[in-house]
Amino acid sequence: MNDVLLEKLHWRYATKQFDPDKKIPAEDWSTLEEALILTPSSYGMQPWKFFVITNQELKESLVPASYKQVQVAECSHLLVIAVKTALKTEDVDKLIEATAKAQEKTVESLDFYKNLIIRDIIEGPRSKDIAGWAKLQSYIALGNFMTCAAMIGVDACPMEGFVPSMYDEALGLAEKGYTTAVLCPAGYRSGEDKYSASKKVRYSSGDLIEHIS
Amino acid sequence: MNDVLLEKLHWRYATKQFDPDKKIPAEDWSTLEEALILTPSSYGMQPWKFFVITNQELKESLVPASYKQVQVAECSHLLVIAVKTALKTEDVDKLIEATAKAQEKTVESLDFYKNLIIRDIIEGPRSKDIAGWAKLQSYIALGNFMTCAAMIGVDACPMEGFVPSMYDEALGLAEKGYTTAVLCPAGYRSGEDKYSASKKVRYSSGDLIEHIS
Repeated sequence: MNDVLLEKLHWRYATKQFDPDKKIPAEDWSTLEEALILTPSSYGMQPWKFFVITNQELKESLVPASYKQVQVAECSHLLVIAVKTALKTEDVDKLIEATAKAQEKTVESLDFYKNLIIRDIIEGPRSKDIAGWAKLQSYIALGNFMTCAAMIGVDACPMEGFVPSMYDEALGLAEKGYTTAVLCPAGYRSGEDKYSASKKVRYSSGDLIEHIS
Repeated sequence: MNDVLLEKLHWRYATKQFDPDKKIPAEDWSTLEEALILTPSSYGMQPWKFFVITNQELKESLVPASYKQVQVAECSHLLVIAVKTALKTEDVDKLIEATAKAQEKTVESLDFYKNLIIRDIIEGPRSKDIAGWAKLQSYIALGNFMTCAAMIGVDACPMEGFVPSMYDEALGLAEKGYTTAVLCPAGYRSGEDKYSASKKVRYSSGDLIEHIS
């Protein structure tokens, strides 16, 4: 598995040009959706919503909101990761109820855990910037997604270059209490994308890793 | 591969209790270090440094800086992801030079790309919060790391609960221009960790995913 993993991580790259005719098969996309859902998050709060856009008209209309990067239109599936802009006690209640149900416990037996979360993200210092905290979590999902996509041979292109307010507007996010955190068009590289052959640029292990043993 | 991937993602969990006697073999850790280095980042800036702490005394001394979470001491390898607190034109130059070298181009041929980066993260709006931007990137590394660890059967525990200033002090980060972003102890679950048998709590696909087709 070690060799396969590294081979896939070397194979992946930020796809600049997708083949618009190649669509991700339903089975593979379903795997990636399950992988997204399984992403770990702080306290297991899952403060996100994943928008999966395959509607061609909508994808094309989002090109201007993406600084003209055509990947959002030419990809097979445009993944938009949105995050909550605020959290309330009810959000914690929802998690506690889901936990009690999944683990066959009483809600009361989870009181300690519930209060811990409330003290931190509802009443504590993190409550001042929930969107920022949630955005950090969304990048875990992004990292997980890109690695999982590579593992099953799906190309992707992480994108921070977009106008959040335009995405929020197009997806009606503000009224739902979400904002756009990051994008990741997915699909298959075009045979004409010269970047697919570019050598990956990474600093050396000596530069990036420090061992204290 | 789809089934294996999902099986591994279901297998992983935030390990509460590591077996302190089980150490990650050098070959597996080396794979995870390479995976970390291969993590994608915005513009490929790699604004991070990965500290790998196996020194038992240091790991133990960091327990108080981690709100008494003993995973940092009982794990095999304590991964500390630190990020840059500021970026200068020289940092962009370094990337451009590395790109030119890796891709056998001239530095001048990359001027457009260089200026794009400078206008954004050195002079643009993102320059006002480089540590915040870099911290987002570090969560991609965290997500990638956790997924890769799971793929090769290594347990991990993502941790936001620590005092950054105490980690910065212990690792001498301030004078190097870095700050601690997030932790991820890695190793092997203890047979006594009751959480390893807990059912994973995730909201439904209907809750988390919205298709626009």
